[in-house]
Amino acid sequence: MRSMTELSTTINHVNGFSVAGVHAGLKKDGALDLALLVSDTDSVAAGVFTRNRIKAAPVLINQEHLAKSNDRIRAVAINTVSANAATGEQGMLNARKMAEIVAKQIDCKPEQVFVMSTGVIGSHLPMDKIEAGIQHAAQSLGDHWHDAALAIRTTDQFEKWASLTVETDTGSYTVAGITKGAGMIAPNMATMLGVLVTDVRLSPKLAQKALTDASNLSYNRIVVDGDTSTNDMVVLLANGRSDYEIQSQTDFKVFMDALTQLATYLAQQVVRDGEGATKFITIDVQGAKTSADAEKIAHTIASSPLVKTAFYGNDANWGRMVAAAGRSGIEFDANKLSLWMTPTLPDSDERGLLLFEAGAKADYDEHQATAIISEDNVTVTLDLGSGDGCAIVWTCDLSHDYVSINADYRT
Amino acid sequence: MRSMTELSTTINHVNGFSVAGVHAGLKKDGALDLALLVSDTDSVAAGVFTRNRIKAAPVLINQEHLAKSNDRIRAVAINTVSANAATGEQGMLNARKMAEIVAKQIDCKPEQVFVMSTGVIGSHLPMDKIEAGIQHAAQSLGDHWHDAALAIRTTDQFEKWASLTVETDTGSYTVAGITKGAGMIAPNMATMLGVLVTDVRLSPKLAQKALTDASNLSYNRIVVDGDTSTNDMVVLLANGRSDYEIQSQTDFKVFMDALTQLATYLAQQVVRDGEGATKFITIDVQGAKTSADAEKIAHTIASSPLVKTAFYGNDANWGRMVAAAGRSGIEFDANKLSLWMTPTLPDSDERGLLLFEAGAKADYDEHQATAIISEDNVTVTLDLGSGDGCAIVWTCDLSHDYVSINADYRT
Repeated sequence: MRSMTELSTTINHVNGFSVAGVHAGLKKDGALDLALLVSDTDSVAAGVFTRNRIKAAPVLINQEHLAKSNDRIRAVAINTVSANAATGEQGMLNARKMAEIVAKQIDCKPEQVFVMSTGVIGSHLPMDKIEAGIQHAAQSLGDHWHDAALAIRTTDQFEKWASLTVETDTGSYTVAGITKGAGMIAPNMATMLGVLVTDVRLSPKLAQKALTDASNLSYNRIVVDGDTSTNDMVVLLANGRSDYEIQSQTDFKVFMDALTQLATYLAQQVVRDGEGATKFITIDVQGAKTSADAEKIAHTIASSPLVKTAFYGNDANWGRMVAAAGRSGIEFDANKLSLWMTPTLPDSDERGLLLFEAGAKADYDEHQATAIISEDNVTVTLDLGSGDGCAIVWTCDLSHDYVSINADYRT
Repeated sequence: MRSMTELSTTINHVNGFSVAGVHAGLKKDGALDLALLVSDTDSVAAGVFTRNRIKAAPVLINQEHLAKSNDRIRAVAINTVSANAATGEQGMLNARKMAEIVAKQIDCKPEQVFVMSTGVIGSHLPMDKIEAGIQHAAQSLGDHWHDAALAIRTTDQFEKWASLTVETDTGSYTVAGITKGAGMIAPNMATMLGVLVTDVRLSPKLAQKALTDASNLSYNRIVVDGDTSTNDMVVLLANGRSDYEIQSQTDFKVFMDALTQLATYLAQQVVRDGEGATKFITIDVQGAKTSADAEKIAHTIASSPLVKTAFYGNDANWGRMVAAAGRSGIEFDANKLSLWMTPTLPDSDERGLLLFEAGAKADYDEHQATAIISEDNVTVTLDLGSGDGCAIVWTCDLSHDYVSINADYRT
């Protein structure tokens, strides 16, 4: 017997992990701006990293540390305001130094520390403030998950944290995570940092597989603006402190379900907090030749500025959606394409109002379509009528506020 | 001896061509909304068409007519307000009918007529108005190039027309063209219609080669919003009425230079008229392994919402530009990348202010960078330091007005 608790939108406690979020003097308004997460014992670790050719120093350092520590990590330190990206040799030295400062505080090897940075590209870390901030955080460690979730925000309006527990006959374990991100969000690792933790015991290989698969169904399925960041990464730390071990395929499947549910919720929260977003949009592509085809089409629609501005304007402009599908690079028969729109209903397969049928406009009431797209949560379903491939991508609209936020970000 | 006149931003007369722009009752405000262009005699014709899988009916019909007429076209009719795209069988019938109406008016075969439509996707052509409009236009034919350029606009703020004349010892000829487009503009044929004409004599094969090559250096090098339209097409009509014939390779090269100069000007006018645009931006990528690599990188930067909003905000945020280069899918050594910015100066190779040098921030004055990006015309040069591949792409910024225009387009 295995069962899963409902996803909780908070985190109380995860065995063996302690966290802190502090003000290190990075943000000018005195807000929390540095987080530290520590595992009492070595944690099996896994990571997924940005595919951008310009990788920020912390991304490169973490890839190195993961290999050098044999996937046994003790801590994650995260700063905001400076992304330590495109910072050359000095940036690499600073990222290394940041790991060393943490290692000294908690008495581990520097390669057992992950470092993450988010903020403006091209500025150097203010190492004095980083050092003092880490020391302060190390002295404040506890179950301060809320502070940690608050401390990693940049343009985020709200904190993103969640957890759930898996109960079995022979023991229980928890998966929990915090995430930041609101802009520079695109398919190949949204511009985003995520730290997922669990007290389950599993091998590094399974941890990496679980994280990669869960990310592909969650963090890699969201779009805010189509810009893939230099700093994106999500890591998983599994410290085994629950004494429950993933052994069978069924164990792994249940763990994957829990991790995917957690990561999906956190990724969706990033879209809900998308810069300037007023709507949460689900693009559900079905009937493609392959699921990879479906994903490419869904991503192209989700990234289209014309589609996103139409949503902002409450204009049920399906023409822009089918045009975006058409330019996705995927071959399909335009005469088999149909499109529906519905207010998003949890756990419903209802496709809603048919707007486009087999390559031409359907006979529908424009007022009804406008009423649907005026909802805060809208699902668009495309059926290509050519196979079993399907994929869902989540996105938001493109508003005046997106432009304001990004035209004024550095000033 | 061959020489070329300066590009003229008007069109006076092209031998054997007559045009009209009329109000056919399509636009509610009484503005010109339908254009007709007729060649007295058969014109050698060529076309480049959208690569969108969803091709509008007029795109499909024109491809058919080009083949069926053996590349001998007599007329082009263009309507606005309805794009006749995603309109199914009825749309195909309407596009055919539109060609038939023109053919009857000027006494040619229907397959000798090109039809073009631009406007909202999914609405059917109002055939009564189209028929009356074409009849009216056929009775108004003359050197009304300005009316024709005005009549094909949708969200365009201004008309786009130009011409130039090539003088040789044995005769002279003219190339001229009109274009529309301001939104749904992306690499694979900007969302855009273009009609280029010349009175030079050349073979259909050379006409197609000239149009394809010139388009690849002009219309396919502009980005407004990255959305490739269902209706994009540019056609070339060459009626040979100047009695000057393209025979030698040198003849062809001079013709290509003239056609490319014309098409580049018209394409740049589309960017200058980009929806909500306040700036004209030139992205010049050099030192790539191949020119195809350079073009992909330039397109990715030119399409990035974060880069475009930074320009709108006068923020010399080179970090977003190198991040966009990094996510382009092209492999390069981040440590060899440098970036400059300068006010755009005609015929200058000056790279201007060095912002990013060999993978790290250069030592520059932020006020100076802000002064440069605050100009109306800005050139960004990236050097990848890895070869001789280079490409230029033109784009505009992403402003509040872009959002307003596209959130409200149908209402």
